[in-house]
Amino acid sequence: MMSSCCHHYQFVDGNESIFTVDFNPIKYGPCALEELSFDVRSLEMSRVALFTDRKVLSLEPVEIAIRTLRKARIDFEVYDEVSIEPTDVSFQEAARFAAEGRFDGFVSIGGGSVIDTCKAANLYSTYPAEFLDYVNAPVGRGRKVPGALTPHIACPTTSGTGSECTGIAVFDYLEHRVKTGIASSRLKPAKAIIDPTVTASLPAAVVAASGFDVLCHALESYTAKPFTARDMPADGERPLSQGSNPYSDMGCREALRLTGQYLIRAFQDASDDEARHGMMLAATLAGIAFGNSGVHIPHGMSYSVAGLVRDYCPSGYPQGHPLVPHGISVVVNAPAAFRFTARTNSERHIEGARLLGADIGDIGADEVGEALGRHLENMMRSTDMPNGISGVGYRQEDIEHLVEGAFIQQRLLNNAPCEVSRDDLDSMYSQAIRYW
Amino acid sequence: MMSSCCHHYQFVDGNESIFTVDFNPIKYGPCALEELSFDVRSLEMSRVALFTDRKVLSLEPVEIAIRTLRKARIDFEVYDEVSIEPTDVSFQEAARFAAEGRFDGFVSIGGGSVIDTCKAANLYSTYPAEFLDYVNAPVGRGRKVPGALTPHIACPTTSGTGSECTGIAVFDYLEHRVKTGIASSRLKPAKAIIDPTVTASLPAAVVAASGFDVLCHALESYTAKPFTARDMPADGERPLSQGSNPYSDMGCREALRLTGQYLIRAFQDASDDEARHGMMLAATLAGIAFGNSGVHIPHGMSYSVAGLVRDYCPSGYPQGHPLVPHGISVVVNAPAAFRFTARTNSERHIEGARLLGADIGDIGADEVGEALGRHLENMMRSTDMPNGISGVGYRQEDIEHLVEGAFIQQRLLNNAPCEVSRDDLDSMYSQAIRYW
Repeated sequence: MMSSCCHHYQFVDGNESIFTVDFNPIKYGPCALEELSFDVRSLEMSRVALFTDRKVLSLEPVEIAIRTLRKARIDFEVYDEVSIEPTDVSFQEAARFAAEGRFDGFVSIGGGSVIDTCKAANLYSTYPAEFLDYVNAPVGRGRKVPGALTPHIACPTTSGTGSECTGIAVFDYLEHRVKTGIASSRLKPAKAIIDPTVTASLPAAVVAASGFDVLCHALESYTAKPFTARDMPADGERPLSQGSNPYSDMGCREALRLTGQYLIRAFQDASDDEARHGMMLAATLAGIAFGNSGVHIPHGMSYSVAGLVRDYCPSGYPQGHPLVPHGISVVVNAPAAFRFTARTNSERHIEGARLLGADIGDIGADEVGEALGRHLENMMRSTDMPNGISGVGYRQEDIEHLVEGAFIQQRLLNNAPCEVSRDDLDSMYSQAIRYW
Repeated sequence: MMSSCCHHYQFVDGNESIFTVDFNPIKYGPCALEELSFDVRSLEMSRVALFTDRKVLSLEPVEIAIRTLRKARIDFEVYDEVSIEPTDVSFQEAARFAAEGRFDGFVSIGGGSVIDTCKAANLYSTYPAEFLDYVNAPVGRGRKVPGALTPHIACPTTSGTGSECTGIAVFDYLEHRVKTGIASSRLKPAKAIIDPTVTASLPAAVVAASGFDVLCHALESYTAKPFTARDMPADGERPLSQGSNPYSDMGCREALRLTGQYLIRAFQDASDDEARHGMMLAATLAGIAFGNSGVHIPHGMSYSVAGLVRDYCPSGYPQGHPLVPHGISVVVNAPAAFRFTARTNSERHIEGARLLGADIGDIGADEVGEALGRHLENMMRSTDMPNGISGVGYRQEDIEHLVEGAFIQQRLLNNAPCEVSRDDLDSMYSQAIRYW
C-alpha cells in the first residue's frame, strides 16, 4: 500500500497503518469543581476515597470538593498522605488505605503525584498483586491489568501533569533509585474535571515548571516516531504510546501555540487569568495528545535527573526534602534533546519552534536544532529555570549514572524519531550541564 | 467572573462556563476493518447483528467484515433492509429484527442511514417503548434513554456522516412528512472503526455530497453560538450540542483545512488516495467536533428540503425512489445561511473561508458573508452540485412549507450564533432558490 494520509505518514507494507483515539471524558471550565457531586453520582459512587496531599488539602479546590460532597450527603474519606514525587512505598501505603476503606469510587485532587498515587491505589486495591507485577519491564514484570478498575475522577490543580487523561502512574523505585511507572489504558480515570481557576493560587515557580512539562508533552509528541514506523501488531493490541499521528498532532499544535503565547505571561503575573487559563487548556490538550502518542527523550532523560537528586530544594515546593520537580527534570534536558532529534524530522521541529513563537524566518534543515534549542533556552531564562542539569546539582562525573537510569526507559526512547544509544545520552547530558 | 479563555468566549455570571468532551473510542486507518473480530471480542459480543443496506452488502467492506467474523467463528446475522434516508417505519422494522434475534452486539457498516438505523434498533430492542417516546420534541416526547445500550461498532463507508461519533439518529417521520431524530449520548456507538480505503469505490457524486456534509458540520460547529452564551444548567446536565467551544474548534479548523485542500480533488479523481483519505480524516474530525458542539441553520433547513422531496433522483444513489441525499439537502442552504450568520461573528466566518482556501485578503466585516457565500458556490459548481433548492425541485411557492418544516428544528436553530425567525428562514430559502 503506497498511499499516505499526509506526507509525514508513509504507509509501508507490514508496518502499522492504524491509530486509535480513546480518552476519558473531560469536563472543563471555571466552576467545574462545584459540580463534583453530580459527577460522583453519575458514576454511581456511594463511598468515595478523596486523595490529595497535605499542601493541597488546605487550598480552595479541596474545600470546594468537600463542601459539594457534604451538601450532597455523599460518604467520603480523605487520604492526604500522598508524597510529592511518590515512591513504591508511598504507592503501597495508599493502596492499603484504599483496600481497607472498601470504597466504590475515587476522587483525586492535586498535581500529578496525587493523581498517579490514586491510580496505583485503585489498581492494587481492586486487583491485589505483588507490587512489581504491574510495574513496567525491565524494572517490574509488566503484567497486564486484569480488568476494569473502580471509577476515578481526577481533578488536576496544576496546569501541567496531563495525568488526568493518561493511563500512566510514575514513581521512584527506592531500592534502585530510579523512576519508573505503571502503564495501562485501564488506569485512565473515568473522568477528568479540569477547573482552570484553581491555578490562580499557584506559585510562579510551579506555573513555570508545570508549563514546561506541558511544552515538552506537546513537542515530544509532535516530533515522536510516526505511528506508521511501528510494526503492524499481529493481534490488534497497540501500545499506549502509538507514536505521532494525525489526531494527536492537532492537540500538540494547539498546545504549542497556547504555550508560546501564555507560558511566560502566566509565570510573570498570577492575576493574568487569560494566560493561566490558557496554560490549563494547553495542559489538557497536550495531555490528550501525549496520552495517545507518547513522549520520548526529554522525559526519558528526566527519570534519572529526578531519581538521583542530591540536595536540590526548589522554591514554591514543600521544603525539607530534596526533589527535582517533574517539569524541571524534563525541561533541563529539552534543548539538548531537540538539538539531537531535529536532524531526523526537521519540518516538525521548525513548525514546533514557530508555534512556540520563535522568530526563525527561512532556515535550513541543519540550523533547526540550534534555533529551537536557543528558543527553549530563552524561554527557560525568562522563567528562572535552572541552567541545565548543573542547575539542579549534577556534575560531569554524574553523567554515567544519569545515562544508566535513562537507558532503561526503553518504552520512551523507542518513541523517539531516531535510535538513541548510551553514547547519544551521554552526549546530550554533557550538553545539558549548562546552557548559558 | 470576568476572565475569558480566549476572546471568542466571554464568561458572564449565570451563563455556562463549562464544556465537556466525551466521545467514543475510534480506530482509524487503512486495514482497520480487517481487525473487526478483535474489536467484537474485546467488547465481549458473542452474537452479532450486522447492519448494512442492499447496496453496501455487495461491496468490499461487508465482504471483509464477514470474512473476519467467520474466521474468528463469531455468530452473526445480517440485516440488509436498511432504507436510504430511513423512516419511522424502517426504524421499527429494524428494531423488530434486533429484538427477535437476541443479540449481545451490533455492527453497522454503511453510510449515515445504516449507522442511524442500527442505533435506533439497538435502543428500541434494549428499552422497548412507543416509537415517539424517545423522539425529539416537539414531534416526539423526548423521553430520556433509561440506561446503557448494547455495544455497537459503527463502520462508516462514506466520508461524510460523522454518525459513528454522535449520539444522534435521524429519520423521516412519514405521517408529518418531516425529518426529525433521536438524540442521546447513550446512542453513541461503543466504538468507531474508520477505514479510509472503503471510499475508493464511492461514486464521485456521493463523495461530493458527503464531502459537503463534512464541510457544513465543521463550518456550522465553528460558527455556532459559543457555549458561554447558554444558561448555566442547574443540575450539571448539558445538552448534546453545547455550542462552539475550544475543543471542537480545534477539530473544525483541521476539518475545514482538509476539506478545502481535498474535497474537489477527491471528487475529480477516485484514484487520488491522498485526497480521499484526507476527506475521511476530515469527516472523522468534523464528526467528533459537531458531536460535541452541534450544527445549526444549514442542517436545520435541510430537514424539510429532504423531507418534502417530490421527484429528485440524483445520480450515484439507488434509483427508483426520489430522495435528496443528506449532504445535498444541507449544502443547498449553506451559501444563503452563512451570508445570514456572517454578520454576527464575522471573524469566525473569515477564518472559515480562509481555511477552506478562499483567497479573500483583507476584507471588512460586512463583506465576509458575500465572500464566504461566493466561495461555497464556487466549490459547489466545481463538484456538479445542484444550483440551490430549485436544483432539487423546489419553487418559490414551496417556501412556506419548507419554512414550517425548518422552524420546528428548534434544537438546531437555537445553536445558531443569532436568533432565527420564520421570516429569516423565508428570506434564506428565497436566496437559496438559485445561486448562479
